[in-house]
Amino acid sequence: MPDIPPSLYRSLAEELRAAIGDGRLPAGSRLPSVRETARNRNLSINTVLAAYRQLEARGQVEARPQSGYFVRSRLAEPAAPPMSARSARAQPAEAAVLDRIEAVFAAQSDPATIDLSLACAKSSDFYPGKQLSRLAADTARRQPELLTDYSLPPGPLRLRREICRHAHDLGMTLAPENVLLTNGCMEALQLALRGVTRPGDAIALESPTYFNLISLADHLGLRAIEVPTHPGQGMSLDALELLLSEKRVQAVVTMPSVHNPLGTSMPTAAKERLATLAQTWRVPVIEDALYAELQYATPLQPTVKAFDRDGWVILCTSYSKTLAPGFRVGWLEAGRFRRRVAALKLSGSLAQPAFLGEVLGAFLETGGYAQHLRRLRRVYAAQVDRLRGLIDAFFPAGTRATDPDGGFLVWVELPEGCDGDRLCDDALARGITLTPGSLFSPSGRHARHIRLSACHHFSERQVHALLTLGELAKGQLG
Amino acid sequence: MPDIPPSLYRSLAEELRAAIGDGRLPAGSRLPSVRETARNRNLSINTVLAAYRQLEARGQVEARPQSGYFVRSRLAEPAAPPMSARSARAQPAEAAVLDRIEAVFAAQSDPATIDLSLACAKSSDFYPGKQLSRLAADTARRQPELLTDYSLPPGPLRLRREICRHAHDLGMTLAPENVLLTNGCMEALQLALRGVTRPGDAIALESPTYFNLISLADHLGLRAIEVPTHPGQGMSLDALELLLSEKRVQAVVTMPSVHNPLGTSMPTAAKERLATLAQTWRVPVIEDALYAELQYATPLQPTVKAFDRDGWVILCTSYSKTLAPGFRVGWLEAGRFRRRVAALKLSGSLAQPAFLGEVLGAFLETGGYAQHLRRLRRVYAAQVDRLRGLIDAFFPAGTRATDPDGGFLVWVELPEGCDGDRLCDDALARGITLTPGSLFSPSGRHARHIRLSACHHFSERQVHALLTLGELAKGQLG
Repeated sequence: MPDIPPSLYRSLAEELRAAIGDGRLPAGSRLPSVRETARNRNLSINTVLAAYRQLEARGQVEARPQSGYFVRSRLAEPAAPPMSARSARAQPAEAAVLDRIEAVFAAQSDPATIDLSLACAKSSDFYPGKQLSRLAADTARRQPELLTDYSLPPGPLRLRREICRHAHDLGMTLAPENVLLTNGCMEALQLALRGVTRPGDAIALESPTYFNLISLADHLGLRAIEVPTHPGQGMSLDALELLLSEKRVQAVVTMPSVHNPLGTSMPTAAKERLATLAQTWRVPVIEDALYAELQYATPLQPTVKAFDRDGWVILCTSYSKTLAPGFRVGWLEAGRFRRRVAALKLSGSLAQPAFLGEVLGAFLETGGYAQHLRRLRRVYAAQVDRLRGLIDAFFPAGTRATDPDGGFLVWVELPEGCDGDRLCDDALARGITLTPGSLFSPSGRHARHIRLSACHHFSERQVHALLTLGELAKGQLG
Repeated sequence: MPDIPPSLYRSLAEELRAAIGDGRLPAGSRLPSVRETARNRNLSINTVLAAYRQLEARGQVEARPQSGYFVRSRLAEPAAPPMSARSARAQPAEAAVLDRIEAVFAAQSDPATIDLSLACAKSSDFYPGKQLSRLAADTARRQPELLTDYSLPPGPLRLRREICRHAHDLGMTLAPENVLLTNGCMEALQLALRGVTRPGDAIALESPTYFNLISLADHLGLRAIEVPTHPGQGMSLDALELLLSEKRVQAVVTMPSVHNPLGTSMPTAAKERLATLAQTWRVPVIEDALYAELQYATPLQPTVKAFDRDGWVILCTSYSKTLAPGFRVGWLEAGRFRRRVAALKLSGSLAQPAFLGEVLGAFLETGGYAQHLRRLRRVYAAQVDRLRGLIDAFFPAGTRATDPDGGFLVWVELPEGCDGDRLCDDALARGITLTPGSLFSPSGRHARHIRLSACHHFSERQVHALLTLGELAKGQLG
């Protein structure tokens, strides 16, 4: 960079810092482009660039390739969750918890609700709905036999081939004959877990983890041992290795790429270490990669499965978060457990509807998926920024939130004295849904946390709902 | 009936009897209509009727309403299966059994195979494919959001309402809010069984029973106690009551209406008794009603669920055998176990694709289902007759076969000295699939039996395949 009079860029940087400080430039907002600022202020491009870079160096803005400079949030990451000494037996969800889940579910289907809970975009704007509906109509007309043919495993080869082609983007080399189609990712997880455990076994679950995994473990009679899981680090592999060395768990379930609820990922080196641990200790690792393709940065970081050499890693995922929630097309690659898992699928639900599999296969063959994902990643990255900015603006001081590297979920830690369950109930009474942190632990940890979902368009109502949540949280502090 | 000279009708009856005896009128064939015979032979209608009725009285022909008189098969019903004393622990399917199942599966997807095994019509002629494809195309165009909306329970109300409307035909009064949609009947059975048992429990299974139920019980860690099940009588309720009184089983699984593999039904009085047993002994009865709507005679005989007063009966079924195998739309009504089963569905596979549910609901609303079922029942009744006639003609003396009252499956007992597994293997080598009887028992009973499926059009190839099977069976006898 050529020499620029410091006074010029410093005074610009100072001015922007003040605007950030008093909220005129809120977290998540984009700075005017370098070119634009230079023109408006009669400065050279290099001078503006120097100012922006100073802000970047001080952590106040961040540069995003092809997008410009954005105001960074002042939100700190949540602290590591406190772990109690005991290992928790997966508990049958208590009546109060079930009631809360049912109330949230019921509210979600009410169009008047402002939904910050459901982890799936409701608006079809987020998906290539037109193309899918055209393909569905065409397929129904041209291959009506797909509606009446008995759909038997393994299901449409075209779809399984496309699945393997796209798996390359996540570093995986898979064969179509090893891909088993399932009714969404949830059935894939269910089959994987049944395939590698017996009732009474213990499994390592992340803490926090996706709440339905806790129900699943409970329903299968499994004991869940919670392993501390950190934003940006993922499951503590030191803690896991301790459990493995003591032969205390028969399986591991993890969501290393764009975690639910954290929204962050395990570093690639740690993923490789996890694959090695699975092989060394001969323990199956069930990898839930549901959000992996929603990583903001490309090339995508690989999955744990990408480092699997001996088939100890079972990869489970679906198209429900990325392309077509209504299709319920999931799949798994079960490595060395392939045969048993296929048998469980036969006795568990036999097969998937061939029609939807063909339509999805046809869409993937058009090549439109990559383009769609690029758009969706940009949309979700912007939405999450917006959400974090609003949390920053409205929630009580001391609130922390994760800084997701993909997807649309943000994990929020409320200040001491706040309670997520109570916030959920109070919000529900005002027509707002969120997911309380206690659901993400079998032993009720994370009581001060909530999960917010940024997969809906931000209208004034959404903004107002976040203001309300912030006020409710402040109210809890007295 | 007016007086008719006996000589006239007796000589006609004699003549027909001779034609039946030497195969000119094979089993399953229709006698010329009364009117036609009267005209051709210059006899009065009453004379012909008297002759036909004499044949009917002697069991050589049978009258079918609106269809005429048909030559009855000489096939005897299979004997009650011999029961060994031990109760069999559901066994992990042995490698040989798995290999045989896989070989049959693989052969089924080869268009060169003559398939007498798959329990589902492959030809879309059997279904209203055009209407379904038109509705699917329309729905895709008009409600594209169904493809991208997250399909969450309980799923399309329209479909659940239609399900309840049609359930009336089987004597059941159900409420849409208690109907849980599933991925085919198999998931319904899986959820029901998981909902009422724990690993290590014992369940009463019919012997013979649908082979996938045996796998399911095994996969869930359940012990299967085989209860003798008779053609035309169903599960022995005396035997079951003994087990119940000894508290030896935690659940009962039964297919009382058009049994797979028997093709026959439990009498209605016995169904009522079974509902009472469930209530008396407070034991859940899981009723698989998959083929119940394919009963040939209408009004349909009711299900066991129709007699359920306290919610001890769980009804499981789907549209896979009757209307749209490719949709994989099943459902269950879990009575008093509703809440637990719904929770298992959530953690097991979450939901069903709303799009297919809407299309099916739309079809059912048109009222075309009743008409379609009428046609399908006639088709299957004729196909089963044809199949039984061919078994009668080609198989060795002493072969027995059930006389189904619905559906398209026939259970065949080969003479002493024959072996169903061997027949399956030998047939497979000739490009013909059948289902060996041993698959229908966890302890390898029914080794002399095979199940044949009459859900495919009978071409010359099909007829020749049955000739081949008959020859192979005869070859086994020396």
